Parts: sequence; C-alpha cells; structure tokens
Amino acid sequence: MGRWEPNARERLATAALDLYSERGYEQTTVAEIAGRAGLTERTFYRHYADKREVLFAGSAELQELFARAVAGAPQATAPLDALLVGLDAVSEAFTDRRDFARKRHAVILANPELRERELIKLASMAAAIAGALRERGVAEPAAGLAAEAGVAVFKIGFERWIAAAERRTLPHLLRDSLDELKAVATGG
Amino acid sequence: MGRWEPNARERLATAALDLYSERGYEQTTVAEIAGRAGLTERTFYRHYADKREVLFAGSAELQELFARAVAGAPQATAPLDALLVGLDAVSEAFTDRRDFARKRHAVILANPELRERELIKLASMAAAIAGALRERGVAEPAAGLAAEAGVAVFKIGFERWIAAAERRTLPHLLRDSLDELKAVATGG
Repeated sequence: MGRWEPNARERLATAALDLYSERGYEQTTVAEIAGRAGLTERTFYRHYADKREVLFAGSAELQELFARAVAGAPQATAPLDALLVGLDAVSEAFTDRRDFARKRHAVILANPELRERELIKLASMAAAIAGALRERGVAEPAAGLAAEAGVAVFKIGFERWIAAAERRTLPHLLRDSLDELKAVATGG
Repeated sequence: MGRWEPNARERLATAALDLYSERGYEQTTVAEIAGRAGLTERTFYRHYADKREVLFAGSAELQELFARAVAGAPQATAPLDALLVGLDAVSEAFTDRRDFARKRHAVILANPELRERELIKLASMAAAIAGALRERGVAEPAAGLAAEAGVAVFKIGFERWIAAAERRTLPHLLRDSLDELKAVATGG
C-alpha cells in the first residue's frame, strides 16, 4: 500500500467489476483482475480476501453507517423519521457511485450465490437497525417491523436509482419510497 | 407410495427434523432419516430430492397460496387489506404445525447455508406477491413496497408465533404484526 500504488483498492474494484461484467463472475480470476488494474495478485490480496469480497467490501460499513445514524437521531424522533435519518446517511456513501452500483447489481443478479449473499447482508442490516431502534426505546415487534420496512425502502429505492433511464438522486428516491410505503400502510 | 407406506412423506419429514435437531443437519444422512422413519432410502427419494428439500418442500405451495389469496381479494380491496387476505390464507397451512415450525426454525438458524436458502424463499415470495398486486392494478413502487412489507409481517409474526412461551394463534399474531407496522408507518 505504498505510494507507488495510488488508489489500488479502487482500481482493483473497478477492474474486477469490469471483468465480471464482460466475462462473468465465475470465469474471472484474481490474476486477471490484478493484471487489468496494472497491479500484482499480492496487492489484490492485501486489499481483498477473495474475488467475492470485492463486491461486498462496503456492506459492513454501510450497515454500521445506517444503524449509527438511526441510533443518533434526536431523542424525540419517531421510528420512521429515525429511519429517514439513516437513509439519508447511507445515500451519501453512494455519491458518484451510480455506474458502479449499476454494474455491481447486474453481476449479482446473474449469480444465485451472490444473490444469496446480498440477501444475507440485507438481513444483517435489518438486524442492526432493529437493534439501534430498540436502544432508542422502541419495543418489539415494532422495532423489527420498522427495521424490515427501512431495509425494504432502501432496497427498492436503490433499485429505482440504478434503473436504466433514472435521473433522480438516491436521497430523493429513498425519501419518495418511504412516502410510498407510508401511503400504502395508511391506505390499507 | 403404495398403501403399505402410510403417511410416508410426513413420517420422513418428522424423522428428518428430529435427527437434524438431535445431531445437527450436516451430520445426518438420508439413510438415517429413512431408518428412523422405518422406510427405505428409495422411498425417501420418491418424496424428496435431498435432505435439504425436506425443510423447504412447502415453500413453493406457501408462496402460491399467499400470492393467489392476494390476487383473489375483492376488487376494491386496498393493498394492505389484500395482504391480510394472503396472511390469513397462509396461516391455515400452519394449523397444528407449531412444534414442527419451531424445530425447523432452530435447525435453519444453526446453519448459514439453510439460512441463506430461507432468505431466498422469502425474497421469491415477495416477488410473487408484488406480481399479484401489480395484476390488481397497484403501480410500482407501491406494489414492491407493499409486498416487502407483507413478507416482513409474515416473517416477524411467524417468529413471534414460534417463540418459546407464545400461546396466541398465528392468524392473531400476523394481524397484530400488520397493525404494528401500520402504527409505525403512521407515527413516523
């Protein structure tokens, strides 16, 4: 990670995603990823445990970011508004990442094993958010239900954001999806 | 499946779940399951593709049941009330199955591979329900959000139902969970 490898982590992620898109995830080797990035395999393994990790490296931080923002919302904030604070916080992590997110999503959809892994990450995120809500004094089952709803809003708002012709921003689409959920819940 | 093997399918499922609980899922073989049920391996494979299938055999029917009930709700029914029709329909599939459901859940929680499989089944259920809602004229993203909310209510209501000391019925707990979600959504 010396100065002769500037942005190695990012270059490797970009190279990996390009190769997964072009040849398929299964068919791509770590050696090829490193080669495409102009780096060595050894450098790859200094940054990522394996080729799957490239796709999920940000998941733990994202979960942490979401849960911490929910936990840190002002004390009197209702659960759903605390979720909104969390959704705004995760939005920021994706600034200028739409193309990357689109490619990543396509690679994951094409591979059942990666899709299962993505679902596990979302389930883990829901558990972390439920924990943050319980710490705010929200009782079960409300905490668990609100957390699942928050992750559903994130998932669907995110999928809208990376849709082909979509131009609206992620914060906008997450807020809009939360409003849609409210409308569904009150109209039933 | 002749008359000399009465209830073979159910006996195999019970034997499998007992063994998974006692020894662990990984450590149990199909031969042991068949032996415990007093049947042959060949009979096992007439009913289930493999030992994992015993745990997920009902998932496709459950999804079908849920989606069909949502699709068949009276025309003017709001999305959330259509979900309630679906939740009531799936409840019936679990009548007298609480002990089985408790054991199954414990086995699945103990094994990451089974947990991933369970999440895939829930995601597939959400997709089917979203499809049923779209056919009712509900637009996206409302259909997707309502479907995710419905699956969250099912998941959390179900987990409450199989909790150790819980005595209330599944239909009661699913309805209560739906009401809790409404309260969260309107209070935000």
